[in-house]
Amino acid sequence: MFRTFAFLLCALALAAHAQPDPLPSWNAGPAKARVLDFVKAVTDDASPGYVPPARRIAVFDNDGTLWSEQPAYFQLLFAVDRVKALAPAHPQWKDRQPFKAAIEGDLKALAASGEKGLVELVMATHAGLTTEQFEQVVREWIATARHPTLKRPYTELAYQPMLELLAYLRASGFKTFIVSGGGVEFMRPWVERVYGIPPEQVIGSSIAVKYGAVDGKPALMREPKVNFVDDKAGKPVGIHYHIGRRPIAAFGNSDGDFQMLEWTTAGPGTTLGMIVHHTDAAREFVYDRKSGVGRLDRALTEAPKRGWEVIDMKRDWATVFKVASP
Amino acid sequence: MFRTFAFLLCALALAAHAQPDPLPSWNAGPAKARVLDFVKAVTDDASPGYVPPARRIAVFDNDGTLWSEQPAYFQLLFAVDRVKALAPAHPQWKDRQPFKAAIEGDLKALAASGEKGLVELVMATHAGLTTEQFEQVVREWIATARHPTLKRPYTELAYQPMLELLAYLRASGFKTFIVSGGGVEFMRPWVERVYGIPPEQVIGSSIAVKYGAVDGKPALMREPKVNFVDDKAGKPVGIHYHIGRRPIAAFGNSDGDFQMLEWTTAGPGTTLGMIVHHTDAAREFVYDRKSGVGRLDRALTEAPKRGWEVIDMKRDWATVFKVASP
Repeated sequence: MFRTFAFLLCALALAAHAQPDPLPSWNAGPAKARVLDFVKAVTDDASPGYVPPARRIAVFDNDGTLWSEQPAYFQLLFAVDRVKALAPAHPQWKDRQPFKAAIEGDLKALAASGEKGLVELVMATHAGLTTEQFEQVVREWIATARHPTLKRPYTELAYQPMLELLAYLRASGFKTFIVSGGGVEFMRPWVERVYGIPPEQVIGSSIAVKYGAVDGKPALMREPKVNFVDDKAGKPVGIHYHIGRRPIAAFGNSDGDFQMLEWTTAGPGTTLGMIVHHTDAAREFVYDRKSGVGRLDRALTEAPKRGWEVIDMKRDWATVFKVASP
Repeated sequence: MFRTFAFLLCALALAAHAQPDPLPSWNAGPAKARVLDFVKAVTDDASPGYVPPARRIAVFDNDGTLWSEQPAYFQLLFAVDRVKALAPAHPQWKDRQPFKAAIEGDLKALAASGEKGLVELVMATHAGLTTEQFEQVVREWIATARHPTLKRPYTELAYQPMLELLAYLRASGFKTFIVSGGGVEFMRPWVERVYGIPPEQVIGSSIAVKYGAVDGKPALMREPKVNFVDDKAGKPVGIHYHIGRRPIAAFGNSDGDFQMLEWTTAGPGTTLGMIVHHTDAAREFVYDRKSGVGRLDRALTEAPKRGWEVIDMKRDWATVFKVASP
């Protein structure tokens, strides 16, 4: 009898120890506690905050939330590389902005070309091919390009704590979506491998595509025309068109995510809104209210009164970048 | 020894018998065989036609493919009911087409109002509310309305053989999507319950929504403006925007599905295209090349040379409509 009891105790102790920390790269603190409390509340069917699995939708901004976005959105660096690659076939580009700035790698001059310049750059580099050709171009770039200062492949600049969070939410019955201002077709070729998010769960900005034939075979041709801008008030709209139900958790890092956080956390029942605050000059970057890229101003001011949890990268993350799989 | 052997034989025999027919409402014949062969090829990793689960995307038209569409698209009958419900607040409607026709239940006069009339009807009945209000209106209608001649709730006019097919494909690692010319928000409130397809796997036509506030709370307001028409060449485009990969199986019933079938079956590897042909006057309806609703002409002509399998409803389906769950 005593032996049976001892054995049971032992098994219980082992079971308790067998529960590994789902978020090992998060330091103990309010941000980690908030995530754990939220997941516990929505998954425990005895909890008043319980949410059935079908409604466990979590949305994540990409740039600055799942991977870095400095010194410029990585998709812009992709466009710059693509201008350089295409330049020999477009000799007129070397004397014309914004192409001149791109060829010279002058990000400052590029930024000075404003939204009009950037749209022109995107159309010249992202349109005029079939969707399958563009996918191939993205695949090759993402496999070979390196970040200008961190000197690593861009996909290694995914945040380890967020990868753990994505996996933890999925293991807790959530469906995870990306909702990004970036181009949907720039993300889809690699996000499944890096984030575990399949292409059909990626919402983003897009240019128009047109169904037709190329070399006698059906093809979708990318047109130099904006189809949808998935930023600011466009984020709840994109979520609605694509998912058709209101998320219960939203993660962002800039004022571009304000409406997505607002829409999510204004929903009924238990909700969670979190903001990644870039506070770590040593390991990543420091920026917020005055940054041209990923400006975080209004959302940072309003976070406390709206109940949004601010993740302080320096304080809350034990590791920043993706740890290579063993 | 003999007993062990006999026991093993017995167990094997039981196991063989334990494999129930996944498509009991399909009569033996070329259509059923085609489905079974296709699923066997893509799921058997020793087969040259094997397709990994992540690429097993199947797309289904809705009207006329998953449920009936006669004497008019059910969404049009919804719009008519909604005009009647809203008419007391709009006294001018009783003298103005297409509203007069709707109030009088005159589907012929309604059809005569053409596309312009139908768009006007849809905007008057589908816009001007929040997305959540509209969802509630659809839920109430679908729960209470009855088909004019078949006298059953519309959701009971889902086809039992297609419900079995959806379930069989999902059990075989497929992700199933609806790709319909109908309104995405008209389908999302009930398709999960009826077809087992979650809202985020529904692609359809849509009107614009705008993010703002109603009574001081964040809301998405439905605007009287077409956002996307998911029909004909719009179907491959909608699939691309939403899913981002090419399906390997497509199911339709009309020329509106031609491009979806074409795009799907022009893909690499093993693919399947199937067309539901309405041939059963006794149990459902008979129509094809000359029908105003769900016209099937070019796709029927080209099916043999394109390798699309035509499902002859009268011949191939042992049961037509949804069988009540036990």
